Amino acid sequence: MITLDKDIKSPFYEQIYAQIKNNILHGYLKPGEKIMGTRSLAGLLGVSRNTVDRAYQQLSVEGYILSKQSAGFYISDLPFAFPVEKKVEAPKAKPVSVPKQKSVDVKYDLTNNSYTNNLFPVKIWKKHYQYALDVISSKEEITSLQSFQGDLSLRSEISRYLERIRGVKCSPNQIIITSGLQQSIDYLCLFLGDNQPSVLMENPTYPKAKEIFIKNNYNISYAPVDEDGIKIHDVMGSRHYGFVYTTPSHQFPLGMTMSLERRYELLKFAKDNDTYIIEDDYDSELRYYQRPIPALKSIDYYEKVIYLGTFSKILAPSFRMSYIVLPSNITEAFLEKFKNYNSTVNLINQIVLSEILASGDYDRLVRKMNYIFKKRFEAFKEGFKTFSIPLSITQNVSGQYFLIELPKEYDENDKHSLIEKALEHGVRVYDSMHFWHEDFTCPSNSLFLGFSKISIEDISDCIKRLRLAWDS
Amino acid sequence: MITLDKDIKSPFYEQIYAQIKNNILHGYLKPGEKIMGTRSLAGLLGVSRNTVDRAYQQLSVEGYILSKQSAGFYISDLPFAFPVEKKVEAPKAKPVSVPKQKSVDVKYDLTNNSYTNNLFPVKIWKKHYQYALDVISSKEEITSLQSFQGDLSLRSEISRYLERIRGVKCSPNQIIITSGLQQSIDYLCLFLGDNQPSVLMENPTYPKAKEIFIKNNYNISYAPVDEDGIKIHDVMGSRHYGFVYTTPSHQFPLGMTMSLERRYELLKFAKDNDTYIIEDDYDSELRYYQRPIPALKSIDYYEKVIYLGTFSKILAPSFRMSYIVLPSNITEAFLEKFKNYNSTVNLINQIVLSEILASGDYDRLVRKMNYIFKKRFEAFKEGFKTFSIPLSITQNVSGQYFLIELPKEYDENDKHSLIEKALEHGVRVYDSMHFWHEDFTCPSNSLFLGFSKISIEDISDCIKRLRLAWDS
Repeated sequence: MITLDKDIKSPFYEQIYAQIKNNILHGYLKPGEKIMGTRSLAGLLGVSRNTVDRAYQQLSVEGYILSKQSAGFYISDLPFAFPVEKKVEAPKAKPVSVPKQKSVDVKYDLTNNSYTNNLFPVKIWKKHYQYALDVISSKEEITSLQSFQGDLSLRSEISRYLERIRGVKCSPNQIIITSGLQQSIDYLCLFLGDNQPSVLMENPTYPKAKEIFIKNNYNISYAPVDEDGIKIHDVMGSRHYGFVYTTPSHQFPLGMTMSLERRYELLKFAKDNDTYIIEDDYDSELRYYQRPIPALKSIDYYEKVIYLGTFSKILAPSFRMSYIVLPSNITEAFLEKFKNYNSTVNLINQIVLSEILASGDYDRLVRKMNYIFKKRFEAFKEGFKTFSIPLSITQNVSGQYFLIELPKEYDENDKHSLIEKALEHGVRVYDSMHFWHEDFTCPSNSLFLGFSKISIEDISDCIKRLRLAWDS
Repeated sequence: MITLDKDIKSPFYEQIYAQIKNNILHGYLKPGEKIMGTRSLAGLLGVSRNTVDRAYQQLSVEGYILSKQSAGFYISDLPFAFPVEKKVEAPKAKPVSVPKQKSVDVKYDLTNNSYTNNLFPVKIWKKHYQYALDVISSKEEITSLQSFQGDLSLRSEISRYLERIRGVKCSPNQIIITSGLQQSIDYLCLFLGDNQPSVLMENPTYPKAKEIFIKNNYNISYAPVDEDGIKIHDVMGSRHYGFVYTTPSHQFPLGMTMSLERRYELLKFAKDNDTYIIEDDYDSELRYYQRPIPALKSIDYYEKVIYLGTFSKILAPSFRMSYIVLPSNITEAFLEKFKNYNSTVNLINQIVLSEILASGDYDRLVRKMNYIFKKRFEAFKEGFKTFSIPLSITQNVSGQYFLIELPKEYDENDKHSLIEKALEHGVRVYDSMHFWHEDFTCPSNSLFLGFSKISIEDISDCIKRLRLAWDS
């Protein structure tokens, strides 16, 4: 029995189609059974024959009914008995929200993953976006699949920027635009295509990078670090590594800069052992006091350094634009390997960023961010001086986080108690444990605090809460 | 000898820094050597002492010089003899352009990878972009690393869209936003994490999908297709496949729709063999005549179908936004696997797309595109009727391409000669060879023509050129 309902939004032919289909699926109409002709059904339902025709046509195309030459329509022979149409959860107006870790009321989250909202340069982005959209919408590129490497104008701007700010000289051809650090590392792993792939990482290191090596089945070894950076001598000769992953400008999370001596040692190690160094230069632009240290890549005389940069720290973490700078002698092989890949980065955004770099707005943004983060860092540094438990902050001249060293005699329990007490007072601070390879190698007296998500006005209140939590 | 040049853009302290560094790197200043004090050098150069201090500070930080307590500055002990600063290719104003295949003057490129420019919905995009930017720039999300899954509002809109247009019922939680088909497949391969991974593909199939399985070291088997789609019976029992990759709505590149019978067979096969079906529904919205055929996913009673959708065909290939719909019973495990990953898709673009879907603009765009492509297809179909060599066009009711069947007696040489002759007349048509698993399985009398990049006004001229090329 087919019923039509004028109050339902869907047109009559759709209602007819859906009801016959349901009847078939529920077994009310059996394979081989003849159904009413279009003229009769149209008459019965009081609709035009055209409406029924359209419904039958759709049922035919989908294979539910067969039209036999001048003999009418029959239910098709479905290949096997069929369960009644499954009940699936319909999309809800209020969909399931992602579960958030929010047992207590956190007023200040001292993370380094998010920013305060006011930092997104909405005016600059909007201005250049409008321009880019007008230009690009008349161009062929917008409607084409892009090449894997990314937009040439953006790559050219990046090469100029790198020379200007990081001392890195490279041609645009050595640059690949990616959707973030993780994708950059993923491509590198794929490129190496080692059978027994192996990477040497610093201990401690950046967990989101480590994750990608794990995904690619890499055997991960660890090199210790001291105040001068990675101690490559300690692991020399032990085995061959495809990559050494390192953060020379600003060791993550300890914060120190790799010394020149260690840099040269590392370059020589890479040359002697035919290993590529992955230099993750994640926040090197954010350097409060001195000019930024030139990148390791700037002294890559042996063509062994793969440089990874990102725009997330200046624009916004949600922008998802990063890049790889390859040594020139592997660029061709790299591009050959990925010749059937398309870029995963939205083209308009690439053009906009290219405009922002070319206009000088990006450099101005960097300076602004440096100023803001410097102020925040100094406010924390000053604030912690007033605590009665003696805290020291890692010597830090850049970035958006620092480590707190608690008194030497503090153990794991003391540390956890401080984290909990802080939380009770509305401040989330982080255990630095998960940056270390194994728990026991992590100093038990160290906490991780990021200040990207707390505004300068709130820092004194945050400090007050922490003092209340920890000094009592 | 240090010289300062007022005409150089860089400030004096930078010039001092750079020249001392160069002197060290070139060996003019030796390790252990004492250098002039800041006061003396400042006097000598006629600059403030502050300027020299800043240069020395930078050299210290980078490890080139050492400050000895009240004994002045010394050149550091560099770890090994150092080559003279390498000459690297400086970024050029006119950078190397990507080599393009352009030996002849191609007036009409009958590809399916690009669009005519006028198709990008610039007004709609701009309107919603401005709105989204205003809304989002005051929100926390913009400045946070996003969750792997992508924006919830977009996922909710996709779930509504899929139910409306493709008959697929799913919750937003089953959806993952990705940067394109290739990334979608990449994630699926990673998720399965099979030791001896194996995929069954149709022959012929989509090369860009195949590429990703190859990258993930998949063993690829092939199933034949006929006018009803994949013939799964022909390969049953031969081995276990992790995935079957298929294009049920519009077989690529043959153009037919998988019959209902074959769909049920395939679902049963997946259930009996514990195999996941990857349904690539790449252009199913573009259906000129009937309502779109519901997706295979809409009858996924056994929860074995992974649905892949994309927005490239309606917005623009350069947008890089696609999605995965997972069976609900593997969603949790999938999200767990990727919990340390971040989304690679720009957040603002996700919000904009969500607005476009919610406003009904997307559905209107789909209808507009259907109309445009239908007109283009019909113009070609009509045009080819006028040829003296009998050509038939694959029965096609959707999409942006078709195959031409040449007379049966045509062999490889005849085909290549037609391709060349077309090119001589300014029209690029494609050999369909590379869609087939092995050359010999490809019919020698078939050509691939896309009509996404040719406007309706140009089709008669294009036909004229082809007729001139082929009929003479």
